[in-house]
Amino acid sequence: MERKIQLKESDIPRQWYNLAADLPTPMLPPLGPDGKPITPDMLAPVFPMNLIEQEVSTERWIDIPEEILDILYRWRPAPLKRAVYLERHLQTPARIYYKDESYSPPGSHKPNTAVAQAWYNKEFGIKKLTTETGAGQWGSALAFGCKLLGLECKVFMVRISFDQKPFRKIMMQVWGANCVASPSSETNAGRKILEEMPDTPGSLGIAISEAIEEAVTDSSGKTRYSLGSVLNHVLLHQTIVGLEAKKQLESAGEKLPDVIIGCAGGGSNFAGLSFPFVADKINGADIEIIPTEPTACPTMTRAPFAYDFGDTACTTPLLAMYTLGHAFIPPPIHAGGLRYHGMAPLVCQCIVEGLMTPKSFNQIKCYESALLWAQTEGAICAPETSHAIAAVIDEAIKAKEEGKEKMILFNYSGHGLMDLTGYDAFLSGKLIDYSLPDEELEKFTAELKNLPKAEIRKSGKW
Amino acid sequence: MERKIQLKESDIPRQWYNLAADLPTPMLPPLGPDGKPITPDMLAPVFPMNLIEQEVSTERWIDIPEEILDILYRWRPAPLKRAVYLERHLQTPARIYYKDESYSPPGSHKPNTAVAQAWYNKEFGIKKLTTETGAGQWGSALAFGCKLLGLECKVFMVRISFDQKPFRKIMMQVWGANCVASPSSETNAGRKILEEMPDTPGSLGIAISEAIEEAVTDSSGKTRYSLGSVLNHVLLHQTIVGLEAKKQLESAGEKLPDVIIGCAGGGSNFAGLSFPFVADKINGADIEIIPTEPTACPTMTRAPFAYDFGDTACTTPLLAMYTLGHAFIPPPIHAGGLRYHGMAPLVCQCIVEGLMTPKSFNQIKCYESALLWAQTEGAICAPETSHAIAAVIDEAIKAKEEGKEKMILFNYSGHGLMDLTGYDAFLSGKLIDYSLPDEELEKFTAELKNLPKAEIRKSGKW
Repeated sequence: MERKIQLKESDIPRQWYNLAADLPTPMLPPLGPDGKPITPDMLAPVFPMNLIEQEVSTERWIDIPEEILDILYRWRPAPLKRAVYLERHLQTPARIYYKDESYSPPGSHKPNTAVAQAWYNKEFGIKKLTTETGAGQWGSALAFGCKLLGLECKVFMVRISFDQKPFRKIMMQVWGANCVASPSSETNAGRKILEEMPDTPGSLGIAISEAIEEAVTDSSGKTRYSLGSVLNHVLLHQTIVGLEAKKQLESAGEKLPDVIIGCAGGGSNFAGLSFPFVADKINGADIEIIPTEPTACPTMTRAPFAYDFGDTACTTPLLAMYTLGHAFIPPPIHAGGLRYHGMAPLVCQCIVEGLMTPKSFNQIKCYESALLWAQTEGAICAPETSHAIAAVIDEAIKAKEEGKEKMILFNYSGHGLMDLTGYDAFLSGKLIDYSLPDEELEKFTAELKNLPKAEIRKSGKW
Repeated sequence: MERKIQLKESDIPRQWYNLAADLPTPMLPPLGPDGKPITPDMLAPVFPMNLIEQEVSTERWIDIPEEILDILYRWRPAPLKRAVYLERHLQTPARIYYKDESYSPPGSHKPNTAVAQAWYNKEFGIKKLTTETGAGQWGSALAFGCKLLGLECKVFMVRISFDQKPFRKIMMQVWGANCVASPSSETNAGRKILEEMPDTPGSLGIAISEAIEEAVTDSSGKTRYSLGSVLNHVLLHQTIVGLEAKKQLESAGEKLPDVIIGCAGGGSNFAGLSFPFVADKINGADIEIIPTEPTACPTMTRAPFAYDFGDTACTTPLLAMYTLGHAFIPPPIHAGGLRYHGMAPLVCQCIVEGLMTPKSFNQIKCYESALLWAQTEGAICAPETSHAIAAVIDEAIKAKEEGKEKMILFNYSGHGLMDLTGYDAFLSGKLIDYSLPDEELEKFTAELKNLPKAEIRKSGKW
């Protein structure tokens, strides 16, 4: 039995899968400041029209341009691996497979969409992309994508990360991006904040405001903004992960998985793996699909389904999603990518439908799982990815208890080589668990009452 | 054309290749303190007898135990990749292939021997391994190997690296190793130095002394020392790299390479790739084989061939090799793995024979090459690996100038994600070039005159 299931370049998926085509109930539309559904042209100053078209598309299959594949071949098709060493350790009858997305040069699944977005922007005549980044995983992926396509890239990095995590900043510079600490003196939004609070550590909300301002105020009209998760087109670009996995499982003589797991912050790596299988579930397949999140940021497991802003600065359209409230202040847990207050609307609609069953994990259990992974499978995973592994271990133990030969598939979304301080805190006993208290949840979600109400649309089939 | 040439597990080489069997002239023996050749039993307190047997073996093929392969399958067979993006950028007619050894969990080729050494030690009844590490690449590989085989591991890490490069130390801890700053208070050697120089930054020489002392003074007799390069058995374990590459080139329809390139510090990644092809060259194939090194530490290109100690503390047997002198103090260049004063005796004998043609590169050219690599191929290489890439680019440009369709093969020995400070220095213009001045070379090699003279044995066929 091969532990690494490889695909040839010639077997790479040539179309992305768009779940919007198969949803049993239609999505709620994004709303503008007037509470009315926004139209594509309202997004035109922020995104290029070809990506806006993807954002609203309900076509089931969308061709992947050959030029994008030519770039992805640097690391794709990514291997599907069998976690035999973990299986042996757990003495589980379960077969555990995972897509290894840590092989991309920036070290995660993020470049799958960064490259695609850079390509569509270039195709539309755009010369420069702006974005924000927290710990730097998305910023480095976009820097990478822009460099390979010859676009300029400017990344507004939250100041505290800029100062404390210099390595991802250096990565971005290696790929030619201009990475500045946010708030910066280069935008009105940044200057205003710096005047009021010169010592602020910054926030993702401020960085988003700066990145959008820099995009929409470029008088040449050749700059756009880029987002690394949440939106439909971003999730679409990630479906290559699940589509590859399907082919690989087939070539290994496997049928559909019994359980599919992925960590979900904005939802993109999880959706990328699971959406092609959600289609099978809609068609009757018996698959348990589990997005996982931290107990510290329990968007899918405890937050209401409501219309909310995508950013803390209230500049985006209102999205119908599970949300802890745009004013949510995440606790300082180590999985920086899982601290977002909302969740991709497509993922949320699947949860509403009952197609997915989210679970939450505290960070000590996640690091215990990551350590067991490193000491059996060998590799050091990202703190985000550990939230998937924690669920995988639970499911494998359950399979053992039930004596069932389940097949589990999960997304190994990235490596943890740039995030070792979390391991250090865990190993030295300094890590603390954190579950969001009820009163905090109530406080942060209180403001949602002042926004349009999101109607729950449910087919009732799951 | 596939850019990644994969091997199946079932096609992994099942024997290592031992170049000692095919050398046209026999190696000079290691000498003891009395100037006489050492015998295997003299090494027994330091290494287990099964590895000592490999060290002195002249068998051409040595079986790889199945249990070692079972561990290596975590990342092996490693892909052979074609650097099409760099080829396009250089507009070269050369075909550039590379073995990607950065896929191992510790991120380099080092675990190929770390796992093997841990296995042979365990087989011999050993419970614990000690070693030294500078920047931490070898220490993290041995920690990884020991954890997977259930051995204890203690790493003496040069104090300045321990303090300034905390991330590799955390990696070692994730894999369960005990990593201490050297000099430490845990050995006589360490305590003595600390008493004399409490603020010393430490050195690899001190760390070696501490690691060997801890191994040989364990009264249970269950502790041994482990070395990550230079020795014959270490190079032997790395030949799996070149043997895989041979099979992969064949499956891609290629014949033997015209040029083979690898960076060489102690020589192990370079030997691992090249030795199986040296056998072809001995048998008449026309292959240029180029080990590369920094101009700051020009062991192969400028140092004399002489008997010298393997360590700065003069505790090892005398080895016949190119050496800058055991007292050589390397300048603070960023390629920490290429600062060793000596070179693997097997590699040196090949150079003496004319089977290899070493070249040296200054570090700014190497970082320029690494940057071009990152901006074309995508990945960020280790500073050591950049010394191979610099030579690859030179050869590819030469092929273009000559209009020759050369095939170039090199070893991509590791990624640079833990070594980004060197890129930062380069990008911010703070990096300086350094070539060893003649008077320094003379000063450091002066002491070699007091040691036994190494006779040059050359068949004269190359």
